[in-house]
Amino acid sequence: MLFRQLFDKESSTYTYLIASGVGREAVIIDPVKTQASAYLGLIEQLDLKLVRAIDTHTHADHVTALGDLRDATGCMTLMGEYTRAECVSDHVSEGETVDVDGVHLKALFTPGHTDESFSFLLDGAGEREDAVFTGDVLLIRGSGRTDFQGGDAYKSYDSIVNKLFTLGDQTFVYPAHDYKGFTVSTIAEERRFNPRLAGKSAEQYAQIMRNLDLPNPKMMDVAVPANLACGQA
Amino acid sequence: MLFRQLFDKESSTYTYLIASGVGREAVIIDPVKTQASAYLGLIEQLDLKLVRAIDTHTHADHVTALGDLRDATGCMTLMGEYTRAECVSDHVSEGETVDVDGVHLKALFTPGHTDESFSFLLDGAGEREDAVFTGDVLLIRGSGRTDFQGGDAYKSYDSIVNKLFTLGDQTFVYPAHDYKGFTVSTIAEERRFNPRLAGKSAEQYAQIMRNLDLPNPKMMDVAVPANLACGQA
Repeated sequence: MLFRQLFDKESSTYTYLIASGVGREAVIIDPVKTQASAYLGLIEQLDLKLVRAIDTHTHADHVTALGDLRDATGCMTLMGEYTRAECVSDHVSEGETVDVDGVHLKALFTPGHTDESFSFLLDGAGEREDAVFTGDVLLIRGSGRTDFQGGDAYKSYDSIVNKLFTLGDQTFVYPAHDYKGFTVSTIAEERRFNPRLAGKSAEQYAQIMRNLDLPNPKMMDVAVPANLACGQA
Repeated sequence: MLFRQLFDKESSTYTYLIASGVGREAVIIDPVKTQASAYLGLIEQLDLKLVRAIDTHTHADHVTALGDLRDATGCMTLMGEYTRAECVSDHVSEGETVDVDGVHLKALFTPGHTDESFSFLLDGAGEREDAVFTGDVLLIRGSGRTDFQGGDAYKSYDSIVNKLFTLGDQTFVYPAHDYKGFTVSTIAEERRFNPRLAGKSAEQYAQIMRNLDLPNPKMMDVAVPANLACGQA
């Protein structure tokens, strides 16, 4: 399997390019508009054909490359079923599997950071550990804010504790962002060491999230409307 | 095997934490001083014992954590045999293998960025692809500057083309820096797509490097003397 974690330093966004290598078809998760030409260059060099571009949710801190990648490659664009982005060519529901040339991504509805966030579980097929792309709901030793876009700390807690934390111990956790220099974690690690969640009740978590008192993302007023149009508003 | 790529955003430095997991002994490559407490926290959470800290070369753009990690953990510190850093507890020579609890790192003398740079080849032991930690000599689609600290474009070319590029096609390339959002490459990719090297003669490469005309690194006057004292000058 071909697996590339890519980083947009401006927004600290991780983007994932995945292909089985067999038929050279590839899927990209959470691509950033300003990096689109870099992705396309790498996709060409690696002799891949991009067939799916997925956003885990409507991002508020960067503009998505979904529309630009669709225009450049003809790939399908995909988000969860509750997104208000009507531009995407496909929507997924809880438990549905996205299949790309031997790569199997199971959609998990994980609201809380937004009311329409999905995570995607990559099946390791016994050859490697599973990996879960958690968008912004579960970050490494952290979690995505829950104070706008239909965010809800109780739903975030439920998504993380009652859904993501039930995955296998060694499942790799690949979030859409990291601000502290980590690239990957595991479910066992986050269950045990995530300071907002380990040993915390839903009420305690909600209080932690209430007390964050974060300013709105700099790009929010631009990014959200743009991303509802696949980055082309 | 436990493998963690860690990123210092300030200096765009990649640091690598590796352990077989068997006896929980770990090795760290190119650690950054300002991140030492983050490394130590992760090492403790992962139930590891740090036994070796390696610098590929005397860095000019960040201060090493070698001394601080030695003081905190009692680990041995290690650099190549031609470094002027007398503080390190061990030096390696071309072809020598650093063995840490089932993790085997073969030292490859790869001068050019500096006159004392080593790379380290991680033996995948047939279970996974090999990986090479190239320090600053070979970067993803680039290479480390060759205009100070005994740097020499012809030696850099020789190290890359006649040593690193002779490694297996699928050997992963993990550099000490990336400025463009890449986290990993392969030898085959760099051989084919590195714009400074693919299809270039030594003379053409030297001319490219001469024409870079880069300013000195901001931290050079601080970092080099500090790093000759393992980051504790």
